[in-house]
Amino acid sequence: MEIKQQINDLKTGQESAITPVPKPVELELVHLFDKLRAVKGFVFDVDGVLTNNTLLATEAGELLRTMSIRDGQAIKWAIEAGYHVGIITGGRSEGVKKRLTALGIEEYYSGAQEKWTPFKSFLERTNTLVSEICYMGDDLPDLPVLRKVVLSSCPNDAVTEVLDICDYVSPVPGGRGCVRDIIEKVMKLQEKWPEY
Amino acid sequence: MEIKQQINDLKTGQESAITPVPKPVELELVHLFDKLRAVKGFVFDVDGVLTNNTLLATEAGELLRTMSIRDGQAIKWAIEAGYHVGIITGGRSEGVKKRLTALGIEEYYSGAQEKWTPFKSFLERTNTLVSEICYMGDDLPDLPVLRKVVLSSCPNDAVTEVLDICDYVSPVPGGRGCVRDIIEKVMKLQEKWPEY
Amino acid sequence: MEIKQQINDLKTGQESAITPVPKPVELELVHLFDKLRAVKGFVFDVDGVLTNNTLLATEAGELLRTMSIRDGQAIKWAIEAGYHVGIITGGRSEGVKKRLTALGIEEYYSGAQEKWTPFKSFLERTNTLVSEICYMGDDLPDLPVLRKVVLSSCPNDAVTEVLDICDYVSPVPGGRGCVRDIIEKVMKLQEKWPEY
Amino acid sequence: MEIKQQINDLKTGQESAITPVPKPVELELVHLFDKLRAVKGFVFDVDGVLTNNTLLATEAGELLRTMSIRDGQAIKWAIEAGYHVGIITGGRSEGVKKRLTALGIEEYYSGAQEKWTPFKSFLERTNTLVSEICYMGDDLPDLPVLRKVVLSSCPNDAVTEVLDICDYVSPVPGGRGCVRDIIEKVMKLQEKWPEY
Repeated sequence: MEIKQQINDLKTGQESAITPVPKPVELELVHLFDKLRAVKGFVFDVDGVLTNNTLLATEAGELLRTMSIRDGQAIKWAIEAGYHVGIITGGRSEGVKKRLTALGIEEYYSGAQEKWTPFKSFLERTNTLVSEICYMGDDLPDLPVLRKVVLSSCPNDAVTEVLDICDYVSPVPGGRGCVRDIIEKVMKLQEKWPEY
Repeated sequence: MEIKQQINDLKTGQESAITPVPKPVELELVHLFDKLRAVKGFVFDVDGVLTNNTLLATEAGELLRTMSIRDGQAIKWAIEAGYHVGIITGGRSEGVKKRLTALGIEEYYSGAQEKWTPFKSFLERTNTLVSEICYMGDDLPDLPVLRKVVLSSCPNDAVTEVLDICDYVSPVPGGRGCVRDIIEKVMKLQEKWPEY
Repeated sequence: MEIKQQINDLKTGQESAITPVPKPVELELVHLFDKLRAVKGFVFDVDGVLTNNTLLATEAGELLRTMSIRDGQAIKWAIEAGYHVGIITGGRSEGVKKRLTALGIEEYYSGAQEKWTPFKSFLERTNTLVSEICYMGDDLPDLPVLRKVVLSSCPNDAVTEVLDICDYVSPVPGGRGCVRDIIEKVMKLQEKWPEY
Repeated sequence: MEIKQQINDLKTGQESAITPVPKPVELELVHLFDKLRAVKGFVFDVDGVLTNNTLLATEAGELLRTMSIRDGQAIKWAIEAGYHVGIITGGRSEGVKKRLTALGIEEYYSGAQEKWTPFKSFLERTNTLVSEICYMGDDLPDLPVLRKVVLSSCPNDAVTEVLDICDYVSPVPGGRGCVRDIIEKVMKLQEKWPEY
């Protein structure tokens, strides 16, 4: 409405009585930047975030997961720069656990039927606040945590209910670099991204 | 033809004697909702539905299949909500069987040369009717069952003959969540989809 | 040029002296149908045709290949209908060989440095002529055979040199059903495709 | 501006006083051709170049990589034609090493924390100059080498910092044939690409 008024004023040559207000879009961007700046730690779901949501089933009953090299590289850089990084997964894959703990992740919660309890445990053990954590998840069980963290994020192929409430939707799908994308955004803004 | 008549009437200014009938498209939508509401059980083909139609061949002759995490999650929720879920596959993969029975599926028919006989067995053992079952398949051998169930469905990469006759074509390809898509549609309409 | 002449004639109102000729496009289609009708046997390359051109490398040095379920199904139907089916591959994968011979393929040539010699051996052993064989390949080493068979075909992601000379370019890429596509086209035209 | 002038001249019928200059686009193409002609050796990163940037994690902790058949074929042809080919990777995959050394690659540097030192070692051991080498990489640790070689190249899914500085961005993503693409471009221009 303000814009219409201003256009009208320009046409009629009169000065508007309406005080100009910042546009909502800009306000939201500022908000997201504030959120990105507040992050001191990251917690990630595994399936659909660190993996591409598929399983390769072997005859012996093993369920192999596909992960992104670049996600791992970014997690390593984040830990080296002093960020807390944790994992909360409903699954129990030993292979994923070996890969992620080898990168330096110490807080690893697997077989989690619900995610809020392990998340609180992560906060206590790392001495962080919910207002300092970025969480990335892709499915319904991630909603209780996503609703509370300062920066809720998801891959672009998350389920509708998750896409609807996230502060930041990565342009990258799960298992293809969405974790690197959010870590890179935070670390670049905080001037901690490595230079080569 | 009615539309042509109506256009003609508009041009000539005369009132048509033809009684307006509901458009076929709307009728079909109502029909699909009715079908979705009637479902009490699901039967799925494996290759091309629960898998992405590929095999990974190991040197030892194992044939590994790629499945979707989200399909598994939805099957678990469906069983918890009281739906009957069965599998009828022409293949004999032990890995797929282990994964699916671990989710709680009890009716599992593998090595099926034709699919109607095991399907009848599924109906008897679960005490359900053909008018209560949603079947999802993707290839020619699925046609005999697809033609008879109340809700025939397929992934968007099914073969032409299957795409042609299905009540519901999922927008998702095989092995990437088409099973979750149909289960979610049925359970949401019947108000049984979990809340988080 | 004829078309320009005809347009000119229309403009000038004069009748053209040029005899109308059938359009090249139609001629070619007729040609392709004739070729499809002549096929009595199929010979396939493995990598990039029956596989998607990737290798999964295990630590032990195994190189696993990804194949399409539907290609296998179509090969089975072709053999049941009496077509000769052969494989000529530069690779030496035991897993692929096990999968393909289990489908009923008897003529299997692996480790082929060049493909014309094993192809001639296939013709002799199956008592067929080069004018009765459809060959599908995707890379430079397939060119010598592709240039001679009655029906040369390739997946849509073949290399340029192969795409340039093939009678039929499948709309499907390697390892995702291009073999089923060509078998289905031949068998449907010859009324040998199974009915369900 | 020259074009506008020329159009103006055409309109006014006057001859322009402005001397026509070669367009910048053409200049750059000439430059790229010169670079392609100078290449006597290739050095490749593994993850994201020879692989598609994903890992398949087994329960035992193995991390399997996906590679392109056509990349391997092109490396073999390059070595046969007398080019030096080397690998510098931060990873330590035994499976990838087995595959690549089987193709004939002798200079293989794995577990490289930084890439400039092994690159210098490659130059010394193959008796080549930095002005004769094409390097392909996709991520930040590749930048120090990419900035110095005569022909810097990357897959089309490299990170922004790499895309920004490369002489040649392949239209193909990592692990899907980008290595074949650059080798083929160099060898065709130098008339060393095999004929079949």
